[in-house]
Amino acid sequence: MIPTSFQPPVRTLMGPGPADVHPRVLSALARPTIGHLDPRFVAMMEEIKDLLRTAFRTENALTMPVSAPGSAGMETCFVNLVEPGDTVIVCVNGVFGGRMCENVTRAGGKLVRVDSPWGRAVDPNRLEDALKQHPEARIVAFVQAETSTGASSDTGQLVGLAHRYDCLTIVDAVTALGGSPLEVDGWGVDAVYAGSQKCLSCTPGLAPISLNERAVAKIKARETPVQSWFLDLNLVLGYWTSDGGNRRSYHHTAPVNALYGLHEALLMLTEEGLEKAWARHQQHHIALRDGLEALGLELVVPADERLPQLNAVSIPGGVDDASVRRLLLERYNLEIGAGLGDFAGKVWRIGLMGFSSRAENILLCISALGAILNELGQRVDTTAALAQAQQALSQ
Amino acid sequence: MIPTSFQPPVRTLMGPGPADVHPRVLSALARPTIGHLDPRFVAMMEEIKDLLRTAFRTENALTMPVSAPGSAGMETCFVNLVEPGDTVIVCVNGVFGGRMCENVTRAGGKLVRVDSPWGRAVDPNRLEDALKQHPEARIVAFVQAETSTGASSDTGQLVGLAHRYDCLTIVDAVTALGGSPLEVDGWGVDAVYAGSQKCLSCTPGLAPISLNERAVAKIKARETPVQSWFLDLNLVLGYWTSDGGNRRSYHHTAPVNALYGLHEALLMLTEEGLEKAWARHQQHHIALRDGLEALGLELVVPADERLPQLNAVSIPGGVDDASVRRLLLERYNLEIGAGLGDFAGKVWRIGLMGFSSRAENILLCISALGAILNELGQRVDTTAALAQAQQALSQ
Repeated sequence: MIPTSFQPPVRTLMGPGPADVHPRVLSALARPTIGHLDPRFVAMMEEIKDLLRTAFRTENALTMPVSAPGSAGMETCFVNLVEPGDTVIVCVNGVFGGRMCENVTRAGGKLVRVDSPWGRAVDPNRLEDALKQHPEARIVAFVQAETSTGASSDTGQLVGLAHRYDCLTIVDAVTALGGSPLEVDGWGVDAVYAGSQKCLSCTPGLAPISLNERAVAKIKARETPVQSWFLDLNLVLGYWTSDGGNRRSYHHTAPVNALYGLHEALLMLTEEGLEKAWARHQQHHIALRDGLEALGLELVVPADERLPQLNAVSIPGGVDDASVRRLLLERYNLEIGAGLGDFAGKVWRIGLMGFSSRAENILLCISALGAILNELGQRVDTTAALAQAQQALSQ
Repeated sequence: MIPTSFQPPVRTLMGPGPADVHPRVLSALARPTIGHLDPRFVAMMEEIKDLLRTAFRTENALTMPVSAPGSAGMETCFVNLVEPGDTVIVCVNGVFGGRMCENVTRAGGKLVRVDSPWGRAVDPNRLEDALKQHPEARIVAFVQAETSTGASSDTGQLVGLAHRYDCLTIVDAVTALGGSPLEVDGWGVDAVYAGSQKCLSCTPGLAPISLNERAVAKIKARETPVQSWFLDLNLVLGYWTSDGGNRRSYHHTAPVNALYGLHEALLMLTEEGLEKAWARHQQHHIALRDGLEALGLELVVPADERLPQLNAVSIPGGVDDASVRRLLLERYNLEIGAGLGDFAGKVWRIGLMGFSSRAENILLCISALGAILNELGQRVDTTAALAQAQQALSQ
């Protein structure tokens, strides 16, 4: 039996990503496909690179989207920068720091793992201890915005520390980019990667990256080839950058229509203004937080270490994680995220990313959670919670 | 200055891919994004796997799209199947065979390279010589449909040979899938990868793969971890296949909207019927060939080794490659492909892939080429060429 065309339900996406995608981005995806070497496509790629530089706050020449999801952006940074035998310090405070460790060992690096508690920022003192103990370290890596816990680490401080000990830095900004302050040049971040499907409000599948001159110099000085052909920046660059004659070498076929979507999403971010987008995420975070707390729910992360765009909430005792998420989805088409790793079954992750960070979404989330928790016998005051949220939104 | 929304020109894509994308596929891309763990999305993924099995003619459980372009599909097969020290025989008759060699060495394999002339099928005698000389070989790899030259190799025969010498096989079917016969189970292909943007008429960015039990057994028996985290099939499988409890582990965020497009494209192929699609490509190839030959142009590949979907044509003496392609694009929005590698400047590559394989495209290509060649002083009879093509189309 042949299936029929897939007609997805219309959901509100308040999980850890993908976030809601604006209709302008969706319709950009449907524009006619052109060749990946077409001069008009090449001109659009140049615009994407410029728009990404604005979003990353960088002048880095090597700023571009990898043609694959965020985890391939992570792998791009690690397989290019880590040479076999390099000592790499990875600060771990959630799932994605753990994934960085996997990347280091698979690239032949010597891993020094520095754990901070889940739900907390990376502890700079522990990083400094590790730097002192491992003067041979070449690279420090950490996650600015831990999507698994909602903790925000102080990238400026951590990068400063790493540089004092002569290390390059790799920063995961998958959930940060477009949602909370990120100053790639201002903080001296050497290599950074992000994802299209979080605060950029684009569809999943692309990983913007940016590397500075120091990072590029380390790649060019490699004695061993990059283990991945697909992610080898020496080759990718030949496609994404033109030589003097404006001729591009063929590397792989770029995901043309996905890039239409990214172009439109970045355009919308630039139209709004980056700092205004950060402020919007912050204001909506306060409103959601006030509403959730009025429902009696507690945020996992201490106030001064919270990401505005990803709110981890402790699941109240006696409430079944999966049932609540299922009811939210079935009744109200509302998706929130489950806990990952150590947090599985213990927290919900409520995202306010990009186009999902809207007043109407905050009210839907509070009212739907309130209604279901009451039904499950929790006795919560949804009226008060909505009033709290509304007050924060009106400020 | 903020750029404006990108409005691509409407091209006719008769290069080596991407091919024209059907409006049904384009509009599928623009459907609302849902979560990659949403039960409705998971159900659609199951349909994609079934539709891919139909297209590949296989029952392989491990049949799925890699979330990245065709070259990442290639890398997926090599980094999972090749262990450091494995001897791998690669048959090279064009650019993509050469890329396979890169993959082998980067994966730590010992490469045995067997060259056949560009523009010709892989020579089975040379493969057999190599198999005899290298009884330690574990894997044989080759390209069924060499997109750089338009040559079609005999996959059934080559796989049979490899198996006789106890080797697994990796087959590049990027340009083959959906356009010319491919019998994954019938020919015993152990691992195969393809691309979304060729004869499937989907947008670029996804790489369908299929591996049989023997290939999976080799991956499971590895003594070393797969060098890539992103492409490690042991991990990807946890996401793409459910365990008994229908629970999926999170690996990476799937490119949701791109997969809507692939679902629709595979649906259209199934509606047409795979064998009818092969026959359409073959008939249109004959019509294009007759027209081009009537224009005085010569196909590069001998008749019995030609791919119907990719026609490499020798550029007539005195005609400037780039000027003709530029005029076709600027005047008629018609894209044809340049030569790659050894064929750069010497051949044009004219694709008839998927939705590009239409009678109207054949007439456009012949009439536009005829008009431009006449303008350049070549004196060709476009009337006769169109009559030849029309005759072949009416049979």
